[in-house]
Amino acid sequence: MDMHELTRELHTKNDTKIVMLVADGLGGLPMTPGGKTELESAKSPNLDQLAARGVQGGSIPVAPGISPGSGPGHLGLFGYDPLKYQIGRGALEATGIGFELQDGDVAIRCNFCTLDADGNISDRRAGRIPSEESAPLAIKLREVSIPGVEIFVEPVKEHRFVVVLRGDGMGGNVRDTDPQATGVPPLDPVADDAASQKTADVAREFLNQSRQLLADQPKANFHTMRGFAEKPNLPSYEDVYGLRAAAIAVYPMYKGLARLVGMDIVGQAQTLDEQVATLKQHWNDYDFFFLHYKYTDSTGEDGNFDAKVARIEDFDAAIPGITSLAPTVLIVTGDHSTPAYLRNHSWHPVPTLLASDCCRQDGLTEFNESSSVRGGLGQFEAKHLMTLALANAGRLGKYGA
Amino acid sequence: MDMHELTRELHTKNDTKIVMLVADGLGGLPMTPGGKTELESAKSPNLDQLAARGVQGGSIPVAPGISPGSGPGHLGLFGYDPLKYQIGRGALEATGIGFELQDGDVAIRCNFCTLDADGNISDRRAGRIPSEESAPLAIKLREVSIPGVEIFVEPVKEHRFVVVLRGDGMGGNVRDTDPQATGVPPLDPVADDAASQKTADVAREFLNQSRQLLADQPKANFHTMRGFAEKPNLPSYEDVYGLRAAAIAVYPMYKGLARLVGMDIVGQAQTLDEQVATLKQHWNDYDFFFLHYKYTDSTGEDGNFDAKVARIEDFDAAIPGITSLAPTVLIVTGDHSTPAYLRNHSWHPVPTLLASDCCRQDGLTEFNESSSVRGGLGQFEAKHLMTLALANAGRLGKYGA
Repeated sequence: MDMHELTRELHTKNDTKIVMLVADGLGGLPMTPGGKTELESAKSPNLDQLAARGVQGGSIPVAPGISPGSGPGHLGLFGYDPLKYQIGRGALEATGIGFELQDGDVAIRCNFCTLDADGNISDRRAGRIPSEESAPLAIKLREVSIPGVEIFVEPVKEHRFVVVLRGDGMGGNVRDTDPQATGVPPLDPVADDAASQKTADVAREFLNQSRQLLADQPKANFHTMRGFAEKPNLPSYEDVYGLRAAAIAVYPMYKGLARLVGMDIVGQAQTLDEQVATLKQHWNDYDFFFLHYKYTDSTGEDGNFDAKVARIEDFDAAIPGITSLAPTVLIVTGDHSTPAYLRNHSWHPVPTLLASDCCRQDGLTEFNESSSVRGGLGQFEAKHLMTLALANAGRLGKYGA
Repeated sequence: MDMHELTRELHTKNDTKIVMLVADGLGGLPMTPGGKTELESAKSPNLDQLAARGVQGGSIPVAPGISPGSGPGHLGLFGYDPLKYQIGRGALEATGIGFELQDGDVAIRCNFCTLDADGNISDRRAGRIPSEESAPLAIKLREVSIPGVEIFVEPVKEHRFVVVLRGDGMGGNVRDTDPQATGVPPLDPVADDAASQKTADVAREFLNQSRQLLADQPKANFHTMRGFAEKPNLPSYEDVYGLRAAAIAVYPMYKGLARLVGMDIVGQAQTLDEQVATLKQHWNDYDFFFLHYKYTDSTGEDGNFDAKVARIEDFDAAIPGITSLAPTVLIVTGDHSTPAYLRNHSWHPVPTLLASDCCRQDGLTEFNESSSVRGGLGQFEAKHLMTLALANAGRLGKYGA
């Protein structure tokens, strides 16, 4: 049973405030066996103080052993089963650059490529053409015109750009045109179901026109289309939880993910201090706040243990500004672990802390990996965190009589 | 969602080695409340040393409170949801005696029985006829001949034997002929679906012929047929995990279970030392090794606490020979608990230990029931162990972007 069937029925409204702080890639590993993790190494007195009045556990992003990308990692935290709700590649790419997908849109990841004189692909990434050269070409492709379809072309980075098709009756089941090889021509877009036939036809016409528009280019004289995807159909926070929800994020990807579940994107914060200021500013306007902190992940992916420790300490310093607002429920978690040791997202449970007046404290006084293993929340799938949040806020009625 | 949908898509290959040591029935109970379990009583310095560099948890074989047989117990450890994949009784019996089932085979458990002058069953087990008398009778039944069907008859033990039917278009949904009562005649084999009609017809003809072949026997003058089962259709380790897998087991049942998931059976080891030698010998030929140790279960089933302790100590002594190979991931677990106190398989979580360079050590220094409860893996369903193994070996890519 989808937990949303329960929350939709059981949620009630009150004037509580729930804050979910997501330190991306928070969990870590020691660099040498028996050593301390990043979070264990950081001086984080404010998180530890929060631990003393909260309850901890290990959040499993998807399932044991499964390392998630940002999409499934956040869907889990938002309470959307990441194995049920999948965000197609094109839709995630559009989301990541801040494009606001509408219902029925089909988003497509495109790569500029180089065709030789025979029309075969000689370079699948057009020599990794730099963004300065590729962005104007992507914008040039806005000249493509197909009756009955609104078309958006957005530069991404280097050889990558996004195309979004907006029109009636366009499914997303179209095969990639990238043959994943050189020395052969690009493939035709082929629909995998009847509902996607129009999409394939429009894509084919797009490719016809872009081939002409790019014909004179030395490197990027064509492009492939991959990861066709409709806007994912996610019920909103208002619908499933009865929450007016706001997202306070710096990077487009996380704003986009929050928008997909119906959160409002508030503020223009560029720093954590500005994010906290935005939180204060909108405190009375929303029931739920998602605040995303990126740098615990990026330093982990860089393999920079010390920088991740420093970023955790920066994050810790922001806690008093948040607790001063006295949220009814305060959650600190991450969408996955990103140990500097692995330089990558990992499967390890994420230290997660929930503080409320009725959380049933577990007596732990530090917040980190080894504490969370012994915490009162045990290990749990991330998708259950929102129900715990609602319950601690007194926002869930009784199931059954 | 079946985890195999994920692992099939996400698995990658590298040159890591995964070793799964299964001490059958490993988990136990104290003989008196407050006492120590078998594993807690055993001197197991090598397992404790492994604990110090690993992470522990309690593996729940099927679901809380469910005590599994060997089939579901091992399927779980192998990552096959034991509630989804079921091995029919006949197929398990054939597997247990080392019969290599082929796709489409139907295996049937048979019991010699005694019919009275009226054709009613007077003894459902033919007086528990000893194996010396029953085996020649089972072999005599190889004279049964039915056109278009290959028939195998294999003695098992006492009144039990196995029949395997090999032919086209034979389903396994046929009802037992054992009426589960005496004073009544055996039942006819009845097909429960159209695809099994031929099987029922063949079984009826088999019974006609065997009734004649056995007519002169004083005790075993007929037999029943039970647990009709097709070979279970399990995807292979190669398919779902991309692993070349080898099984090193002494007893036919465990070789058979491993064979059902596509493992190669290597060596002819009769002792644990020989099993470790076999492991060394084949170290370069496989990615994954399943090593099965039987005696922790059999001593538990005997209710012999001290013998189980001794067998655990024997098992412990074999650990250095395995760690000297430096497997990337080393797992020690059991397919279920077999407490001497209960003289039976039980539902209790099985102490499970995973050691790798990125396992996130939990700081525990002993390996046993009370440690594993506090371990970093928490309590988890056995079916998730293989995903954890693959992740720790760097053999799983990221889920979603």
